[in-house]
Amino acid sequence: MQAFTLDQADRIIDAALDKARETGCMPLTVAVLDAGGHLLALKREDGSGILRPQIAQAKAWGVLGMGLGGRALAARAAAVPAFFTALSSISEGRMAPVAGGVLVRNSNGDVIGAVGISGDVSDKDEVCAVHGIESAGLKADTGLETP
Amino acid sequence: MQAFTLDQADRIIDAALDKARETGCMPLTVAVLDAGGHLLALKREDGSGILRPQIAQAKAWGVLGMGLGGRALAARAAAVPAFFTALSSISEGRMAPVAGGVLVRNSNGDVIGAVGISGDVSDKDEVCAVHGIESAGLKADTGLETP
Amino acid sequence: MQAFTLDQADRIIDAALDKARETGCMPLTVAVLDAGGHLLALKREDGSGILRPQIAQAKAWGVLGMGLGGRALAARAAAVPAFFTALSSISEGRMAPVAGGVLVRNSNGDVIGAVGISGDVSDKDEVCAVHGIESAGLKADTGLETP
Amino acid sequence: MQAFTLDQADRIIDAALDKARETGCMPLTVAVLDAGGHLLALKREDGSGILRPQIAQAKAWGVLGMGLGGRALAARAAAVPAFFTALSSISEGRMAPVAGGVLVRNSNGDVIGAVGISGDVSDKDEVCAVHGIESAGLKADTGLETP
Repeated sequence: MQAFTLDQADRIIDAALDKARETGCMPLTVAVLDAGGHLLALKREDGSGILRPQIAQAKAWGVLGMGLGGRALAARAAAVPAFFTALSSISEGRMAPVAGGVLVRNSNGDVIGAVGISGDVSDKDEVCAVHGIESAGLKADTGLETP
Repeated sequence: MQAFTLDQADRIIDAALDKARETGCMPLTVAVLDAGGHLLALKREDGSGILRPQIAQAKAWGVLGMGLGGRALAARAAAVPAFFTALSSISEGRMAPVAGGVLVRNSNGDVIGAVGISGDVSDKDEVCAVHGIESAGLKADTGLETP
Repeated sequence: MQAFTLDQADRIIDAALDKARETGCMPLTVAVLDAGGHLLALKREDGSGILRPQIAQAKAWGVLGMGLGGRALAARAAAVPAFFTALSSISEGRMAPVAGGVLVRNSNGDVIGAVGISGDVSDKDEVCAVHGIESAGLKADTGLETP
Repeated sequence: MQAFTLDQADRIIDAALDKARETGCMPLTVAVLDAGGHLLALKREDGSGILRPQIAQAKAWGVLGMGLGGRALAARAAAVPAFFTALSSISEGRMAPVAGGVLVRNSNGDVIGAVGISGDVSDKDEVCAVHGIESAGLKADTGLETP
């Protein structure tokens, strides 16, 4: 019962990478996870560092783990650093609390997965993720309005 | 020799979740551990994030690990962060030093287990944990009075 | 977007434990995971060993990881032991290829989660899991007919 | 200096999945790694199990780790099982010694990466991997002729 299809994940990645080339980003890695935090699709551009696949997945995994977009996670990590140090271990290194991890919601607002991008500064990574998600007709939740 | 029964754990979880619905909490996950730090029972409400079972268990495990309620752990983590970073590794990612982890004591004051709740802000998580423990006729130790 | 509700998981566990008491099983631990392999609910009966929560979860996780019921996994593990030794590491200790791990399917045949039971011999564990799943109006896939 | 481009990896995956649909395979996951064992691209078809991304990567990683195709690894694992149990730990769970892991060689015969496919029986997985690699104008080394 997989609500988030490979076809949608493909379209997200390709649109995100188009945006990256258009805006002159550094070489990016884009990961798309389903709601359970499992990889649906990933692409690493030529020249993107060898840890980028793990970082991109960790940005996406973190927002699913907590149910909050990457900006909300980054704000909380700044407020309670000891808890986020613990979360890093609790999650067995699966979460990176920083912009560039974006929840993917369907038309009902349900979380169906997440996108994580790594390679440039977090703000530019996030712009590409949002563009990819919206290009596939889905809603991007960056955690910007989350209290 | 298991002093803390599944029946008691069940009652704690159900009362904690009743409180959560009554007070409009975000979707919660509630974990109950025995004195050895091993899971007796857990429930994750619909919509509670995928890392919440680990966080709830880590809140409960942490208070057992140190023999101090979650508020006392949070205060110490703020005072000596490097030590708690080390504890995170020492415990192999088993502890989250934050409110919402509550020791369960019997009528003699002996620790028989712990409850951990995750999903809303820590203060609201803790209120539900205390309510659950007291509903089962046991004593809740949040670490509030611990020096 | 959680198709498998806590209410369903609760009913599965309670029916499975009723069956266990009726058939004189050793003390059991029952775990119910969603389709992403994340814990929805767990109960450990009084006297059930301290590793049982991990084993019950690993039985359920393994069937989700491979998309095959526990009996099919056990047959494959006997045929290609070196591959299953590798899978144990690949999954970071998350899978136990043995009867007692049962896929939960909805009326369309889609996998919506899994149940794992540990505590008695695997055949008796499995009977309780199947009974629990069917009591909740869902379909149990033990991997018996899988080629 | 990345000899193996994302464009090549993309073509391999898309051709492998075309072959899978043409030959009625179970839902597959295809992973392409560079010569350093790092993920270049991955796609998981709808319905492919949640551990499949790890297994596909482990098939590819194993052939790079030993410099031998998956069939050669499987033969050795059957001959010296204790050594492969050790390799599983030595590699920290990164290798699956089974058909479906295929080395990718350029026109000079140099290894530039590897493909791993998981989801159907190993023989069918391998056919798709070989087809994908050859469709991208590269050489597939399954370990068949390796002594």
